[in-house]
Amino acid sequence: MRGTVIHGTRDVRLEERPDPTVVSPTDAVVRTVAACVCGSDLWRYRGIQEVTRPTPIGHEYVGVVEAVGSDVTSVRPGQFVVGGFLTSDNTCTVCRAGAHANCQNGTGYDGCQAELIRVQNADGTLVATPETPGDALVPSVLALSDVMCTGWHAAVCADVRPGSTVVVVGDGAVGLSGVLAAAQLGAERVIAMSRHADRQTIAREFGATDVVAERGDAGVEAVMDLTGGVGADAVLECVGTDDSVVQALRSARPGGMVGWVGVPHVTDLPQEHLFWKNVGLRGGPAPVRAYLPDLLERVWSGSIDPGRVFDLTLPLDEVATAYRAMDERTATKVMLLP
Amino acid sequence: MRGTVIHGTRDVRLEERPDPTVVSPTDAVVRTVAACVCGSDLWRYRGIQEVTRPTPIGHEYVGVVEAVGSDVTSVRPGQFVVGGFLTSDNTCTVCRAGAHANCQNGTGYDGCQAELIRVQNADGTLVATPETPGDALVPSVLALSDVMCTGWHAAVCADVRPGSTVVVVGDGAVGLSGVLAAAQLGAERVIAMSRHADRQTIAREFGATDVVAERGDAGVEAVMDLTGGVGADAVLECVGTDDSVVQALRSARPGGMVGWVGVPHVTDLPQEHLFWKNVGLRGGPAPVRAYLPDLLERVWSGSIDPGRVFDLTLPLDEVATAYRAMDERTATKVMLLP
Repeated sequence: MRGTVIHGTRDVRLEERPDPTVVSPTDAVVRTVAACVCGSDLWRYRGIQEVTRPTPIGHEYVGVVEAVGSDVTSVRPGQFVVGGFLTSDNTCTVCRAGAHANCQNGTGYDGCQAELIRVQNADGTLVATPETPGDALVPSVLALSDVMCTGWHAAVCADVRPGSTVVVVGDGAVGLSGVLAAAQLGAERVIAMSRHADRQTIAREFGATDVVAERGDAGVEAVMDLTGGVGADAVLECVGTDDSVVQALRSARPGGMVGWVGVPHVTDLPQEHLFWKNVGLRGGPAPVRAYLPDLLERVWSGSIDPGRVFDLTLPLDEVATAYRAMDERTATKVMLLP
Repeated sequence: MRGTVIHGTRDVRLEERPDPTVVSPTDAVVRTVAACVCGSDLWRYRGIQEVTRPTPIGHEYVGVVEAVGSDVTSVRPGQFVVGGFLTSDNTCTVCRAGAHANCQNGTGYDGCQAELIRVQNADGTLVATPETPGDALVPSVLALSDVMCTGWHAAVCADVRPGSTVVVVGDGAVGLSGVLAAAQLGAERVIAMSRHADRQTIAREFGATDVVAERGDAGVEAVMDLTGGVGADAVLECVGTDDSVVQALRSARPGGMVGWVGVPHVTDLPQEHLFWKNVGLRGGPAPVRAYLPDLLERVWSGSIDPGRVFDLTLPLDEVATAYRAMDERTATKVMLLP
């Protein structure tokens, strides 16, 4: 089969690789229907995170089950499935507590930007859709494998509830998904921080009531102006840099909560914005499996359309172009079709 | 009147000071029935926090209202009252959101280890008891002015709920109050970290199901042994040093929550124990006024007896001895009677 391998900075290639097989009785093999490139893949693409040897890459996918191991009971060959960016057994103590991204038996993938994918812990990872989705629905199901669940996690961690005033820092696919999550969770006001007209449009479609283009001090000031000088109940940090984390913490009201899901390349957590302001910080990799059943139902019923974050679709052949488009920000999120 | 003034490291004195008066129409003046020394007072006593000029000290008290300003409607002269360690108006946006310690019009006190106290924002700060408590009940009402509400805040911030497994780091008055709070909030298991036999006894009376005497790595290991290797759902950090914060974060299970209320003398928040483990951190100064009505009812009905944390009572005259006893850890918490 063909699969994407990252060789070093700005060097991704679609290569011939061995077909994955069922190795453990709890495995499944999925034939990819759609995959995508993640903002976090760019850390390696940009050389911020070192690539020490050629490595298969990609962790978001939907597809059709091709084969299952003898212990797999919840999905069967032929079913259309979605799985999260990490596998989880959905049975260990940590999964039972809802923290599937930290599953005691969890694993990653050997590259999902590929034609076939080995999914370990298939029963605890994959969720089958009610039927095979039409092409128009595929992007929204695909979005559940990472960005939509990650935005949802930010909103849950930030304790968004009916009536909340919410700020979302970051207008990438995760930030936009965070806007959608906040609106779905009943936020009365959702302030999206975004400088890009196209992303502002999606943010508004997703439920943003206000858009702030400013960043840093000016961004915090704009949020204060919009919140009577106190800040937001809940802030979703969907970038993961020092600047964005500080901006998020400063945008929260006293007693407020910051949900952080931007993979943190943060050197310092400034306590002056935490303890004395009674601002909390909670987040990390999203427990996709915990959110999948609910969010899949919302997608299936048409309540949410998270696939709107994909603004470029390319054949898997052009995976290098996909990375370049994300790197150069000419695309927010690229869908790849094998 | 006589009031306590800190002059510098290990130098507190009871001095003659002007009687406080009603300055603003929202003020009350309270005649102190009991006051106490706080662990946070020791930062200045020990010279960790600089004392630049002689400063009245103390922020915990119960007493009888002596006089009120013309705008005060919720308490009247003669009533027995308790107030929190900061004043709050209980009406601003921040108070309405429950973050009274960060009240937009909040203030501190001009020293509560004194015979008389000026209480600003009297309506939003003081709560009258149903009747004047007998001597036996006074310590428990006094504990509500800080330590009990602070322990409660730790438990609320750590998201303690029925069935939770909880670790409490710190066996001072706040830590012990945290044990009591966790038990009251329905925790199934409360692991108190304590090396002192007398404090272990109170911890068990307050609801600790397990006591761990080890600290640091050994302490974390003991918690892991008690929690099937995963850590606790909720951890209450009631010390505020680098070591205790790290111990608290490491004691939390993936997806767990740390409530921190120890005044932080922390130089670094180690992110490796936060983001990747999905462990959250929330806390700060307790919004006493938010918790007072509920906790006063629990004290009044005899459900809780937080005054058990006082293990030494001295006349206000001997305030210097009280500080020494707390500093040298011969007392957990000292009550002062004018």
